[in-house]
Amino acid sequence: MRASIKRILIGRPLKSTELGEQKLNILKALAILSSDALSSVAYGTEQILIVLASISVIAAWYSVPIAIGVLFLLAALIISYRQIIFSYPQGGGAYLVSKENLGEKAGLIAGGSLLVDYILTVAVSVSAGTDAITSAFPVLHAHTVSIACFLVVVITILNLRGLTESATILAYPVYLFVFALFILIVTGLYKIATGHVSQGLHAPLGTPVQGITLFILLRAFASGCSALTGVEAISNAIPNFKEPAPKNAAKTLILMGSLLALMFSGITFLAYYYGIAPKHDETVVSQIARETFGRNMVYFFIQGTTALILVLAANTGFSAFPLLAYNLAKDKYMPRMFTIRGDRLGYSNGIVSLGIASIFLIIIFQGQTEQLIPLYAVGVFIPFTLSQTGMIIKWVREKPAGWTARLSANLIGAVITLTVLIIFFLTKFTHVWFAVVFLPIIVTIFLKIHRHYRDVGEQLRIHSEQPAIEPEGNVIIVPVAGITKVVEHSLNYAKTLADQVYAVYISFDREDEKRFEEKWRQAYPDVRLVTLQSRYRSILQPLAKFIDTVQHKAKERNYEVTVLIPQFIPKKSWHNILHNQSGLLIRSYLIYRKNVIVTTLPYRFKK
Amino acid sequence: MRASIKRILIGRPLKSTELGEQKLNILKALAILSSDALSSVAYGTEQILIVLASISVIAAWYSVPIAIGVLFLLAALIISYRQIIFSYPQGGGAYLVSKENLGEKAGLIAGGSLLVDYILTVAVSVSAGTDAITSAFPVLHAHTVSIACFLVVVITILNLRGLTESATILAYPVYLFVFALFILIVTGLYKIATGHVSQGLHAPLGTPVQGITLFILLRAFASGCSALTGVEAISNAIPNFKEPAPKNAAKTLILMGSLLALMFSGITFLAYYYGIAPKHDETVVSQIARETFGRNMVYFFIQGTTALILVLAANTGFSAFPLLAYNLAKDKYMPRMFTIRGDRLGYSNGIVSLGIASIFLIIIFQGQTEQLIPLYAVGVFIPFTLSQTGMIIKWVREKPAGWTARLSANLIGAVITLTVLIIFFLTKFTHVWFAVVFLPIIVTIFLKIHRHYRDVGEQLRIHSEQPAIEPEGNVIIVPVAGITKVVEHSLNYAKTLADQVYAVYISFDREDEKRFEEKWRQAYPDVRLVTLQSRYRSILQPLAKFIDTVQHKAKERNYEVTVLIPQFIPKKSWHNILHNQSGLLIRSYLIYRKNVIVTTLPYRFKK
Repeated sequence: MRASIKRILIGRPLKSTELGEQKLNILKALAILSSDALSSVAYGTEQILIVLASISVIAAWYSVPIAIGVLFLLAALIISYRQIIFSYPQGGGAYLVSKENLGEKAGLIAGGSLLVDYILTVAVSVSAGTDAITSAFPVLHAHTVSIACFLVVVITILNLRGLTESATILAYPVYLFVFALFILIVTGLYKIATGHVSQGLHAPLGTPVQGITLFILLRAFASGCSALTGVEAISNAIPNFKEPAPKNAAKTLILMGSLLALMFSGITFLAYYYGIAPKHDETVVSQIARETFGRNMVYFFIQGTTALILVLAANTGFSAFPLLAYNLAKDKYMPRMFTIRGDRLGYSNGIVSLGIASIFLIIIFQGQTEQLIPLYAVGVFIPFTLSQTGMIIKWVREKPAGWTARLSANLIGAVITLTVLIIFFLTKFTHVWFAVVFLPIIVTIFLKIHRHYRDVGEQLRIHSEQPAIEPEGNVIIVPVAGITKVVEHSLNYAKTLADQVYAVYISFDREDEKRFEEKWRQAYPDVRLVTLQSRYRSILQPLAKFIDTVQHKAKERNYEVTVLIPQFIPKKSWHNILHNQSGLLIRSYLIYRKNVIVTTLPYRFKK
Repeated sequence: MRASIKRILIGRPLKSTELGEQKLNILKALAILSSDALSSVAYGTEQILIVLASISVIAAWYSVPIAIGVLFLLAALIISYRQIIFSYPQGGGAYLVSKENLGEKAGLIAGGSLLVDYILTVAVSVSAGTDAITSAFPVLHAHTVSIACFLVVVITILNLRGLTESATILAYPVYLFVFALFILIVTGLYKIATGHVSQGLHAPLGTPVQGITLFILLRAFASGCSALTGVEAISNAIPNFKEPAPKNAAKTLILMGSLLALMFSGITFLAYYYGIAPKHDETVVSQIARETFGRNMVYFFIQGTTALILVLAANTGFSAFPLLAYNLAKDKYMPRMFTIRGDRLGYSNGIVSLGIASIFLIIIFQGQTEQLIPLYAVGVFIPFTLSQTGMIIKWVREKPAGWTARLSANLIGAVITLTVLIIFFLTKFTHVWFAVVFLPIIVTIFLKIHRHYRDVGEQLRIHSEQPAIEPEGNVIIVPVAGITKVVEHSLNYAKTLADQVYAVYISFDREDEKRFEEKWRQAYPDVRLVTLQSRYRSILQPLAKFIDTVQHKAKERNYEVTVLIPQFIPKKSWHNILHNQSGLLIRSYLIYRKNVIVTTLPYRFKK
C-alpha cells in the first residue's frame, strides 16, 4: 500500500547505472538552474526604485547608473564563477573554493550560509508565487499558508522523481517567462524608437537631485543586487550536467548571465523612460506591461509567466541544496544520510529535508516571507565574497599562465561583493542580524559532527599491535516465563550454540517459584534453571543483576554472554496491545544499558 | 530525571509483601467507595422534582411516595449486593455474578457497561465539581476544560500513589459532607417540629393533581433512581478490604445504604415540606439550606462540601475500574497489561487508562457532560438487572437453606431494576441509544481478545506427540560494511558459535566490490565473503534474497540461520542522527518479514 503510493508519486526505482541518463543538457539545465536568477528580474529594478523614490521622483534617473553598476558586478560574478567551474568541476561551488583556499571554517561559513539560503529561496519564492495566485483569486486568500505548503510538497515530489523529469516540466514556464519579457522589452523599445512614448515622463540623466547621498545610492545599489541571487547555483550543480560537464556548465552560466543582463537592463531602462514610480499595489513590471500593451491578453500572459517563475525559482534551491548537503556530508560535516541516493537517484534526504525546512519557515512566517529577502541576499553575498577571495588566493598560490587577468576579475568581484555585504549590514542590520547569530551556530554544529565522525573512525580502526582477543566459549541466558513451544525452541537453539545455557525464571512469590521449579525439573532436567525473586514485580532489575554476575564470571574465562529473547509477531497489528512485549523492553534495556549481546528469536503466530 | 519526578508524584515503589498494609478498613472504605453513591443525594431529589414540576406545582407531593419507591429499590439493591458480596468474595460484582449464572455474554455486557460507566462517572462528576468551582469564581469560567482535566490528573496521581494514602485524603470531605447534610436535615426537622415552618408551603399528600399520568410518575421514579448510582462499587472492590474482607465489605455496604437512605429521605421530605420547586440557577439542596439557615457560614459550608464530594465521586470510578479491568483481563477478555500491579501496588494501567479516557470525554464534551447523566444511569441499571437475575438463577440452581427469602429479594430487585431500565429506554431514548450501539461493539472486542489469547495459548502449548526437532548446527550471516573493530569482534564471536559463517558485503558498483574482496582476502582469509551487487542501492533486498537461499539450504540439513548485526550506541543521543543505523532497519525487516533469528551485538562508542 505505502509502497504503491510511493511508486505512483515518485516513479519506479532506477538502477545506479541509469545515472547517466538523468543528466542535464544545456537547455534543460538553464531551465532548472536559472529560474531563481532569472526570476530576480521580476523584483530587482523595483528594489532600486523603492530606495530612490524615498528621496524624490527625479532621483529615479539614478537607477540607470546603478543598474550599470549591478551589470558590472554581474559580469564580474559570471567571469569569476566560470573560473570556479573549470577549477572545481566536481561542484560544491563557494563551499569547496573557500574550504580549499581559505580553510575549513571559511568553507563551512560559505556552505552553511548557502544551505540556509536555499531554504530561504524556497520559502520566499513559493510565498511570492502564492501571493500572485491569491491576488488573482482573492477567495483563496485565507488559504495562503496551505497553498504555499502544498506547492512545496508538489515541488518536493517532482524533485524526488528525479532531475530530468522535473526539468522537462519546468522548462516551459522558464522559457515562456523569458519569451514574455523579451516581447515586452522589444515592444517597449520599438515604441520609444518610433516616438510613441513622451520624452517628458522622465528627468534627463544627470539632473541634479536635492538630498541625494552616497549612502542612499549605495543602499539602492545593494537593493538592486538582490537581482543577482541565484547566480551561484550552476557552480554547485556541475555533476548534474551531461559530459563534458564543466564545459556545458560554463556555457549555461554565460547564457544565463546574458539573459539576466539583457532582461534586467531592458526592464530598468523602460522603467526609467516611462517614468515609473514603485506602487504599493502594482509591481513595476506590471506597470511597464500595462503602459506598453494595456490590459490585454499579452499583459496577462506576462503577469502569469512572472507568477509561475517565482514559484519555480524554488526549484533552484531543490537542485542545489541536496548537492551541497552531499558535499558537506561526504566531508563528514553533515549526517551521512545526505550522501545516499534515493530510488530515483536524487539525494532524497536532502530534497525531503529542504521541503520540510521550507514548509516550517512558511508556517512560522504565515506565508509573509518578504521580510526574509534581505537575509536571503546576505546569505548569497557571504559565499560570493568568500569564493572570490578564495579564487584570489588560488591564483596567487598557483600562478598559472595569464593569472594576473584572472586575479583582477576575482579581485574586482571580491571588492564589490564585500562592499555590497558591508552596505547590507550598515543599511539593513535589523533584517540581517540573524545571520551573525546563526552562522557561528551552524559552523559549530558542522564541526561537532566532524569531530564525532573522526572519533568514531578512530574507535573502529583496527590496530594491528593490539589484536582482538578471540572468545573461548559462550554462555547463553534464556529468560523464560513458562513452559511453551517457544521456550522449547529457544532451548534447543541455545544448546547447539553454547556449552553453558541458563534458563532464568522471575517469580513474584515463593509458591509460584516452587511450582515452576518442579514443572521445569520434569520438562527439562538437563537445562539449569535459575529462579529469581522480584520483590518489586520488576523483571528487568533481577535479570540485569543476574546478567552482571554471569558477565563478571564469563569475563574471567573469556566467554561471551548472550541473552536469548523470543519476540512474538502477531498476525494482526492490533494484537500487539494484547502482548506485553516485555521481550522488546528487556532487549533495549540490555543493549543500551548493559552492553550485552541479545539474540531475538521471532515467533510468528499463525492466527 | 524522569524516574525522580515519578518518585515525587507517586512515591517509592512498594514490595509485593506490603500489599496487606495497603488494605482498607471500614471507615476508609466508606470514604473511598461511597463518595459516588452519597454524592447522588446532591441531585437525586432534584431529578424527581424536575419531572413533576413539568405538570404543576401541586404535583410535588408525589415526590414523597416516589422517594419511598426509590428507598424500597435501594433496600432491595443493598440486600441483593450483600448477598453478592458473600457469594463472590473475590470481587468482580455484576460481571462475575452475570458471567457465572447467565453465561459469558451476559457477564461481558455487565462488565462492559460498568467499565464505560466508571469512565462516565469520572467525567460527569469532575465536570459537575468544576462547574461548582467556576460558579464560585466566574473568572475561571473560560478554563473549565483545563481545570476539569487538571482535577482528573490530580485524582489519577492520588490513585497511583496507592489506596490508603488517597483514602486518607478523601476521607475528610466525604465525612464533612455527611456531617453537613445531617446538620441541615436535623435543623430543618427541628424547625418543622417546633412550628417555625408554615404548613401552607406544600400541598397535603393525596391532593388530586390534574394531568398526572402513570408515565410521568414512572419517569420521575426513573430520574430519582439516578440517586442509586454507585451502590455497586463496594461489591467490585472486596479484595481491597482488610480481612475478613467480605464481612467488612458487607458492613460498609449496610452503612452506606443507611446513610444514603437517611440523607435522601431527609432531603426529599424537607424539599416537599418547604414547597421547593426546582430552579434553573439554584440547586434544591442550596434552596433548602438557604431556607433553613439563610446565607450564613453554615450555608456556605454545606455548599462547599457538596461541590467537593461531587469531584471526589470520581474517585469511586478510580477504585472500581482497575479492579473490574483486572477481573476481565484475568479472564482474558482485556489486554494482559491490566493484571499488572504498579510500583505502589495499584493496577496502574487501569488507573491511567481511566484517567486518559475521562479526560478524552471531558475534552470532547467541552466539560458539558450533563447530557451523559441518563446514559450513565442506564450503564448502572444494566448490570444491576443482570446481577439480580444472575442471583435468582443461582438460588434456583443451588437452593441453599432459606433460599426462597433470598430469591424474593433478588426477584423484586430484578423486576424493579428492569422496569427502571425499560422506563429509561422509553422516556429518554435520545440520551441512551448510544448504549445499544456501544455494548455490542465492546462485547465483540472482548470476545475477539479472548479468542486471540486462546489461539495464542493453543499455539504455544507443547504437544508431546510432536516433539520439536533439535537443530543440527548453525549458519551465521554477518553483514559487513568495511573492515573495522566491530567486524572483527562480530566474526570472532560468530566463529565460536557456528561452523558456518558467511560475511556478506553489499556493493553498489563493480570496482568497489573488487577492491573490497581484495582487502578482505588479506584481512580474513579464513572467513567466506559473499559480495552482493545492489543495482538499486538497497541493502535489504539483496540481503533478504541471500538469506532466503541460505535458509532454504539450511532447512534441508536442519540448520538454524542467524544474522549477526552490530548496533552502534553513541555516547550522546544526538549522535544517533549521524549514523544511518541500517542495522536497526535490517533487524526489524528480518524479524518481522523474514522470520530469521537476529543477534544484535552492541558496540558502544567511548566518545
